[in-house]
Amino acid sequence: MTTTLIPNNTLMTETPEEGRALAVKLSRLIIKATQPDEEARNKMRGVYANDPAMLISIGQVVATEFATIAAANNYWRK
Amino acid sequence: MTTTLIPNNTLMTETPEEGRALAVKLSRLIIKATQPDEEARNKMRGVYANDPAMLISIGQVVATEFATIAAANNYWRK
Amino acid sequence: MTTTLIPNNTLMTETPEEGRALAVKLSRLIIKATQPDEEARNKMRGVYANDPAMLISIGQVVATEFATIAAANNYWRK
Amino acid sequence: MTTTLIPNNTLMTETPEEGRALAVKLSRLIIKATQPDEEARNKMRGVYANDPAMLISIGQVVATEFATIAAANNYWRK
Amino acid sequence: MTTTLIPNNTLMTETPEEGRALAVKLSRLIIKATQPDEEARNKMRGVYANDPAMLISIGQVVATEFATIAAANNYWRK
Amino acid sequence: MTTTLIPNNTLMTETPEEGRALAVKLSRLIIKATQPDEEARNKMRGVYANDPAMLISIGQVVATEFATIAAANNYWRK
Repeated sequence: MTTTLIPNNTLMTETPEEGRALAVKLSRLIIKATQPDEEARNKMRGVYANDPAMLISIGQVVATEFATIAAANNYWRK
Repeated sequence: MTTTLIPNNTLMTETPEEGRALAVKLSRLIIKATQPDEEARNKMRGVYANDPAMLISIGQVVATEFATIAAANNYWRK
Repeated sequence: MTTTLIPNNTLMTETPEEGRALAVKLSRLIIKATQPDEEARNKMRGVYANDPAMLISIGQVVATEFATIAAANNYWRK
Repeated sequence: MTTTLIPNNTLMTETPEEGRALAVKLSRLIIKATQPDEEARNKMRGVYANDPAMLISIGQVVATEFATIAAANNYWRK
Repeated sequence: MTTTLIPNNTLMTETPEEGRALAVKLSRLIIKATQPDEEARNKMRGVYANDPAMLISIGQVVATEFATIAAANNYWRK
Repeated sequence: MTTTLIPNNTLMTETPEEGRALAVKLSRLIIKATQPDEEARNKMRGVYANDPAMLISIGQVVATEFATIAAANNYWRK
């Protein structure tokens, strides 16, 4: 089975908060697609959640994904 | 309880200074969402605040978040 | 034989999901072009798939490729 | 006291040179906000100023900040 | 002799595939300009071609160069 | 004496090749501004010019600077 890479197959969200959650989701799904073994991922979670350099890198990935999602939603301007 | 990822659920700010503070906030909230344990985060703060390479990486994340917020606010042009 | 760098020679996709899959594909094809030896690549796959820092970095590359593909497709707006 | 994050609370500058200087300033103010202790920062300065990998990373942060400032100023086109 | 940094002095290409190849080329020419000694570069090629973290970083550089080239070519939209 | 950060105080160039050279120049001037001691810089040059990971990182910085310069020049489209 192939990993779904974008839930609901859309970048559009109602709010910035949902857009941010989508950015987190997209970044995790790439890791899932690259390492499909759930146990292996869970073991690594304990590593990166306690490693400040990795946490910062995760923040970098999410920021990059969010830039795309925010542009797609025209920054949720009214 | 889920971590709020964007305070007030908006990217819009009155000024660049507030936009910058929001960029800092957004980057911290991703770390909080990834490592919800407050004690664990506090312990890491002592590490990254004294590690020049990590401080630079934090600057990179904030710069990326700020790029999105600044574009959302049309660079606060008058 | 030269590695194909962009399948079907286009950035256009029908859906965000396909665009995301293309981003993954593009990032892999650069690695293939840089290290054409399949056995060498397979050996490295076992390394990066179990290294959280590298998995995060892969997420960063995919996020960057996806930004371009999403812009090319005008974010699949209807 | 809170660190000011953007001097004069504006991204607008008269010239590219001033925009570049602002990019340097913004990147330093994030470090200051994250590590408010001046002595700690001064000690780290001696480290990163002699570490080529860190100097390159600083260049990356400044390049990212500058991209935003340059766009804000419409690239100082006449 | 100075290294040429952009072959044919243009970012325009006929196709995405050629644009991608140009991105690879541009990234290599920066390394050539920074390390003009061919023997030194060849020695390093054996290192990075077998180091997964470096291969991923190369992918990051190419993705960034390609973003610019793709925008320059208006994403080769018909 | 303060380091000049942008030669001729402009992002505009006649050609892509000159734009690329400017990107290299800008990235070097940030390093110069951060480490003004010429001898210290020369010593580091021997390090990063023979370190593949650092050479790749330099390529990343130049790619980011070039993105800004290319946009400023509207990609030198005719």
